[in-house]
Amino acid sequence: MRNAWKLALLGIAAAALAGCSTGALQVADVGSYHVGGRAVTLTGLPEKELVFTPGAPPLKFDPNGDFEVEVLYARYTRLANPKGRYPLLLWHGGGLSGVTWETKPDGQPGWENHFLRAGWDVYVSDAVERGRASWARYPEIFKSEPFFRPKKEGWELFRIGETGSYDTDPAKRRALPGTQFPVASFDQFAKQAIPRWSTNDAATQAAYDAYVQKACPCVIVVHSQGGNFAFNSALKYPDKVKAIVAVETSGSPNPETIDFARLKGVPMLWVWGDNLERYPFWTRITAQQENFRQRLIAAGGTGDRLLLPELGWRGNSHMLMMDRNSDAIAERVDQWLAKQGLKR
Amino acid sequence: MRNAWKLALLGIAAAALAGCSTGALQVADVGSYHVGGRAVTLTGLPEKELVFTPGAPPLKFDPNGDFEVEVLYARYTRLANPKGRYPLLLWHGGGLSGVTWETKPDGQPGWENHFLRAGWDVYVSDAVERGRASWARYPEIFKSEPFFRPKKEGWELFRIGETGSYDTDPAKRRALPGTQFPVASFDQFAKQAIPRWSTNDAATQAAYDAYVQKACPCVIVVHSQGGNFAFNSALKYPDKVKAIVAVETSGSPNPETIDFARLKGVPMLWVWGDNLERYPFWTRITAQQENFRQRLIAAGGTGDRLLLPELGWRGNSHMLMMDRNSDAIAERVDQWLAKQGLKR
Repeated sequence: MRNAWKLALLGIAAAALAGCSTGALQVADVGSYHVGGRAVTLTGLPEKELVFTPGAPPLKFDPNGDFEVEVLYARYTRLANPKGRYPLLLWHGGGLSGVTWETKPDGQPGWENHFLRAGWDVYVSDAVERGRASWARYPEIFKSEPFFRPKKEGWELFRIGETGSYDTDPAKRRALPGTQFPVASFDQFAKQAIPRWSTNDAATQAAYDAYVQKACPCVIVVHSQGGNFAFNSALKYPDKVKAIVAVETSGSPNPETIDFARLKGVPMLWVWGDNLERYPFWTRITAQQENFRQRLIAAGGTGDRLLLPELGWRGNSHMLMMDRNSDAIAERVDQWLAKQGLKR
Repeated sequence: MRNAWKLALLGIAAAALAGCSTGALQVADVGSYHVGGRAVTLTGLPEKELVFTPGAPPLKFDPNGDFEVEVLYARYTRLANPKGRYPLLLWHGGGLSGVTWETKPDGQPGWENHFLRAGWDVYVSDAVERGRASWARYPEIFKSEPFFRPKKEGWELFRIGETGSYDTDPAKRRALPGTQFPVASFDQFAKQAIPRWSTNDAATQAAYDAYVQKACPCVIVVHSQGGNFAFNSALKYPDKVKAIVAVETSGSPNPETIDFARLKGVPMLWVWGDNLERYPFWTRITAQQENFRQRLIAAGGTGDRLLLPELGWRGNSHMLMMDRNSDAIAERVDQWLAKQGLKR
């Protein structure tokens, strides 16, 4: 019997030696890379004088030279024993970066956390011009000026409040009744905003395509403006994109000119929040996305929908991965992915 | 004896149920946040016309409104059983972002990976104007134009090659003999570059101070331009900053005007690579940093140095956390931190 206890302790010790901790994520590896882009050389620009310290004499700076531009940044967390058959790539929308998917503005775990806990290797990227992908000089490299989204536009466009309901004073803002967005954290959310350009689509698509070639086979979960890039990448690499979860996607390639048959093996799920019918902007977009979905189905593809109000879940905003019920939505997405045979 | 085996299996099963995997990082939590910054309102700017799709009619865009600006972004990985008594904060240098510390340009694990494996909770941040902290409109909010570092400047200033040794063609670049920098990955490194401003120091300091108040007590590992911010934060919050590892720091507050006695409880280690004497820029900086260190020691503080050439380690560049021997350097840093009583 003494041996019995020795063996038992051996088993427990083996676990302890592996540094194991109940409830901890078993992470094989974290890391990041830049992918895509191109080398450019600037010439003929005048020297600039720069003042580094107030009062100090200006220093001459020559802006000419070689640069690497139009890259995409991705960061990954790979699990020791993933249950997802492929990594899950989280692609952000317009005026935002990969931070969309990380900890929510109210400090609660976001979709990155949820999908890691659900057993997926998770990749979070910043597209060309955003975040750690950075941006390039204009008009020499980028062809136009950037624009910065004011808080009011985010408040209204993202269906947190109706048009005209934004106020500089947080106490005076009128949110939609029953909104799931953590309204008290709206200004914290506004800290995530990133300037955007209207003229970089080709460069952004090229960088996403390079990313798909490097990181996939994969599942893509894509938000808003990112939709168009994900659908295009899937059309180019249908063998690499194993599924697309289209979270309130706002664009897609022209259905008249694409070959939907190429997407037959790429199951897609559209996820929509609440209050879409209150905004002409959103009814236009949902109609266009629905047309794309119907064409996909007609071509023999899988085009499913998760309409949250149909589940009786009211008040979800455009930023539904930040809404109070974000975990419950992610769980439905995870179930759909499992149904497509994408989990072990 | 049947019971013995049952108990043994029970121990092993308990480990398995905890999802344990040998060699995996036991991660309690990953997450991120923006901290610091201020709300600004822009008024009186003219409307702009933006073309979103080539050929489409321009859309009117009103750039006026409320914005959150001058924030700092931090991402953390917290371990289930950290050996470091405090989290380790990694602060980047000029023209770069937190990516400095992640996977190296040659694809090998960087200092973030090393310090996680060494048992530290690791935080990686992007300061004001960089990466996911993003930037603000100029000249209305930021007071000057940004500048973009050409590859040539990085090649020379970071002591990968001597002045005049850069060429657009990678095959024609002449690196310093015996350099530890992974020269074949220099263009990949250039993809990490981020525009910088010369007029944001006060805003950056304010955001770092807010970060220290939120994330500390902590240890700060800081590179190059970041040094000045870390020393200033330590002067303000000497109880929160438990140590500073100053990796080739290029600036510090004026030693004539600061009270070094406040830093007595903040041990510091300066880490220097090779070939400094070949560059007047670097001999000036090392002299200034050495003066700061001597004043710290004279005031009763701890100011240590890790001069890599003294260990017989030749060829380390300014980006020594990306050099081929980066793990060996990180190990020495870890040993020094342990000697300060900062590990369990």
